[in-house]
Amino acid sequence: MKVTVLGSGFAGRTLAGGLADLGHDITIGTRDVEATLDRTDPDRTGNPAYAVWARDFPDIGLAPFADAASDADLFVNATAGAGSIAALAEAGKANLAGKVLLDVSNPLEFSQGFPPNLFVNDTDSLGEQIQRAFPDTRVVKALNTMVGDVMTTPKSVAEGDHSVFISGDDAAAKRVVTELLTSFGWIDIIDLGGIQTARATEMMVKIRLLVMTSLGTPIFNFKIAR
Amino acid sequence: MKVTVLGSGFAGRTLAGGLADLGHDITIGTRDVEATLDRTDPDRTGNPAYAVWARDFPDIGLAPFADAASDADLFVNATAGAGSIAALAEAGKANLAGKVLLDVSNPLEFSQGFPPNLFVNDTDSLGEQIQRAFPDTRVVKALNTMVGDVMTTPKSVAEGDHSVFISGDDAAAKRVVTELLTSFGWIDIIDLGGIQTARATEMMVKIRLLVMTSLGTPIFNFKIAR
Repeated sequence: MKVTVLGSGFAGRTLAGGLADLGHDITIGTRDVEATLDRTDPDRTGNPAYAVWARDFPDIGLAPFADAASDADLFVNATAGAGSIAALAEAGKANLAGKVLLDVSNPLEFSQGFPPNLFVNDTDSLGEQIQRAFPDTRVVKALNTMVGDVMTTPKSVAEGDHSVFISGDDAAAKRVVTELLTSFGWIDIIDLGGIQTARATEMMVKIRLLVMTSLGTPIFNFKIAR
Repeated sequence: MKVTVLGSGFAGRTLAGGLADLGHDITIGTRDVEATLDRTDPDRTGNPAYAVWARDFPDIGLAPFADAASDADLFVNATAGAGSIAALAEAGKANLAGKVLLDVSNPLEFSQGFPPNLFVNDTDSLGEQIQRAFPDTRVVKALNTMVGDVMTTPKSVAEGDHSVFISGDDAAAKRVVTELLTSFGWIDIIDLGGIQTARATEMMVKIRLLVMTSLGTPIFNFKIAR
């Protein structure tokens, strides 16, 4: 499958790498290709610069949002939440029309420090904002309740015995995403309903970041024990 | 231990019953004793009327908030979130001074239907509002991320292999609550930090209620798989 991953940060790369390992044809979209490639220092959480990471994935392309988005079968939004709608607009409404968009972003707002607040919350969600801004795109929210490594390698935590949630208005699009999740090794995939239910998973950001602090590692996930 | 449980609804009764089963001396506080005893119909979720439930717990007292609160060692706030501060005010600031208050409430707001929204959220929490209104009370938020049955009988779900979170500013008060949770059978008790971290657990209400709808049962809980 031809997949365009929008966002060259940690989540975007991890998803791109995971999808490439499964044999998909991946292009990463970024705002400014040169700036992304020129960075050499690790980011503030210690992840290597893009160019360093990319050495292990020579087949993954890097392109400006608009060019990366021309002919993909599936899009992934892994941009920072505050810039997601602008990035998707650069990718192009027409390019995204009719396509499935797996949205893994969260509406983080860091002005008050850590843990971040949400710039949209409870009575609306970033998933809904994206769906409203791109009404012809089939938005599916998933994987936004965990760190990148866990998204693509669920078996790395408790032998994969934990949960992922999906939200979206388009049943066929949710089937595409469910198949993708299954190919990553996900077993407990909980369909919450329409895109409005993304409010609930976006609101889990705060507990996830506090648990991360408490445990001293981001490598964990929520399981619905029953 | 002498425990006053404020709130005669489902969560309050379940906690009262669970604590009585452990040998504690329990009084339930309610706004209007006569009205609580006069009800005969099950509530809207099918729980039996108070008087029917109380037949199984003849040793549990029922009293107005103020009288229930005179000499307890521990208080539990299991009132509806929208009425919690008023109920605690009736219980009496002086009665609550210096005492540990286990707060299991959530700031639910039902004007938009189901799932409810939160009347305080993200940048503040009901736990903090209570702590600010009763500065001499040692507020510990816990057990607000699950249904009543699971609070007192964690073993009823996945043999107890799931998680409970605690938030509070007073370390000794958190130890009291931790001991109580342990006596219910809780094993994975995750201390998130100060009362401010109650924001995170209160924000889990929405995902919990959506999962309840998706699974068709409230009998489940979050586990931090790691």
